[in-house]
Amino acid sequence: MSIVLNSELKIYRNIRGFNFPSKLNSEDAKTILEKISIPLLEKGYKRYAVEGLNSLEKLDLYEEGKITVDVLENEKFSAIFLLENNPSILVNGKNHITIIKSTDDLNFSKLYGEVSEIDDLLDGNVEYAYRDDFGYLTSNPQECGTAMVIEANLHLPATDYFGMSSMRESLKRLGYIALPLGGSSKSVGAIYKISPDRTIGEKEGDYIDKFTNILKEITEMEEQNRKNLYLEKIIDLEDLANRAYGALRYCRIIDEEEMINKMSDLFLGIELSILKPKKNIELVDTINQFKNGHLQIERGSLLDAKSIDILRANNIRKMMKEVF
Amino acid sequence: MSIVLNSELKIYRNIRGFNFPSKLNSEDAKTILEKISIPLLEKGYKRYAVEGLNSLEKLDLYEEGKITVDVLENEKFSAIFLLENNPSILVNGKNHITIIKSTDDLNFSKLYGEVSEIDDLLDGNVEYAYRDDFGYLTSNPQECGTAMVIEANLHLPATDYFGMSSMRESLKRLGYIALPLGGSSKSVGAIYKISPDRTIGEKEGDYIDKFTNILKEITEMEEQNRKNLYLEKIIDLEDLANRAYGALRYCRIIDEEEMINKMSDLFLGIELSILKPKKNIELVDTINQFKNGHLQIERGSLLDAKSIDILRANNIRKMMKEVF
Repeated sequence: MSIVLNSELKIYRNIRGFNFPSKLNSEDAKTILEKISIPLLEKGYKRYAVEGLNSLEKLDLYEEGKITVDVLENEKFSAIFLLENNPSILVNGKNHITIIKSTDDLNFSKLYGEVSEIDDLLDGNVEYAYRDDFGYLTSNPQECGTAMVIEANLHLPATDYFGMSSMRESLKRLGYIALPLGGSSKSVGAIYKISPDRTIGEKEGDYIDKFTNILKEITEMEEQNRKNLYLEKIIDLEDLANRAYGALRYCRIIDEEEMINKMSDLFLGIELSILKPKKNIELVDTINQFKNGHLQIERGSLLDAKSIDILRANNIRKMMKEVF
Repeated sequence: MSIVLNSELKIYRNIRGFNFPSKLNSEDAKTILEKISIPLLEKGYKRYAVEGLNSLEKLDLYEEGKITVDVLENEKFSAIFLLENNPSILVNGKNHITIIKSTDDLNFSKLYGEVSEIDDLLDGNVEYAYRDDFGYLTSNPQECGTAMVIEANLHLPATDYFGMSSMRESLKRLGYIALPLGGSSKSVGAIYKISPDRTIGEKEGDYIDKFTNILKEITEMEEQNRKNLYLEKIIDLEDLANRAYGALRYCRIIDEEEMINKMSDLFLGIELSILKPKKNIELVDTINQFKNGHLQIERGSLLDAKSIDILRANNIRKMMKEVF
């Protein structure tokens, strides 16, 4: 069953002898960028100055998870390096360097290998800020040490149906956090970002193994909850899935959050064989296709909120006709 | 356009020399019933002792508006007289006699004629409690005088969409009340019961004429609002109507209130030609068909709330398939 939506691994690196980006002057920012550019461009990466991107391009990169808020906020100094199927490198966000890669399974070891390869490449060209007692130094002291951030987005509709609070409590006791999508205070599409709540003091390998095990346990619990939902609440489940189908098939105006919620219900229905699509579709791809940013990029212009909601409804109805 | 759902006219009568029903003893109650029975049975009416009705029969009569709460509450003494296409007569509710008739248009004069005919018939057999200064005496002193209650249920979805508060304020100033269906504090299906807030001091004819004019004004305002909704908010309107269609066509569980709300949206869509049914359907009939009472009567047994909601959803889906 499709529960893991994506896993992401990020490492932060800073260069010895330079201020963190928030206190960096223009000249130093340029120097850092040049130092990093040489090996990356040689490897085939393309460099994009964030300032040079238009709003739609920024939206697109942001929704695809290839750019982070700090890099957008620091756009006078920041840049990104992209190469298909390779980690992205963000320069001069909150840290000098962020290396980031994601996948749609739980293979953090593979992600770590890919990110480390870029890490080693850069390490040969710049001197990292590193201390034996603190490890890699980062702008946020809590991220010192391995300076690695790992997280996974899971689709937990059945667990959410029965109530997420006990799972969130257990995770908290074990040192992990489950946050609703987009940092919302309530569930959005029953998608939760799970991450360890600290990075200091553990080797990367152990850290990844423990986290992977936790994620597998959550996944098993969601599978069990889906079975229970099917066996004990079949009519409620049919109601949920079919109403989502009805809303998505007939709406004329729909906002992003409702779209995500209804897609979540729809996919739960598909995975429990209550709804039978003619085509194979994926939750993340489907949601991304109807997000505010993507719709405006597709249309090629910035739109007001209501126009986006109408365009989204039109596109969703079309998709629903094709898929069912 | 279908705005007036039904109009109802009721008169209360009490018999001189007897206590009001709340303080009536068993023997007097029987005497009253006998006095009234003679002319009604002669005319072809059938008499039903309320105590002798089973729960499903009571539910049915209640949902069809043929019986009132006070008559049900006083079931040891109360009875009803029914004859197709004729006014119903309720005996020993809050008053000794209630004569009641409704229609699906605004023809209160016709209703008054029909009710008066029964009134005259009974007047020949019993002596009414009447005083020159107070008029007909009733258990509720506010209803003395003509002891006549008139009301109409209107479907005002467009007015409701733009906000009912200013209309309700204006009506109040003119001496009328607009109450949401079922006495709810919020709009249910945009159906409002309109009635004068006092009965004393006016002749029946004037009272009816004034009320009819008020109702015509409300009807015209709703027509205007529907036009505005169509011209200014066409996409919102399409969204509303089509989502109602989607929900009713695909739900597996639906409670009575949601059913009424969605039917209201559906019918607004039908009347503004956004939805095109293959068959002609009426709002009131459709709603009544899916009410808690009717569903249980059709099934022939009392059901728990969840079973009713499931049965309702099944029947609605079937109807939607047939009609669209």
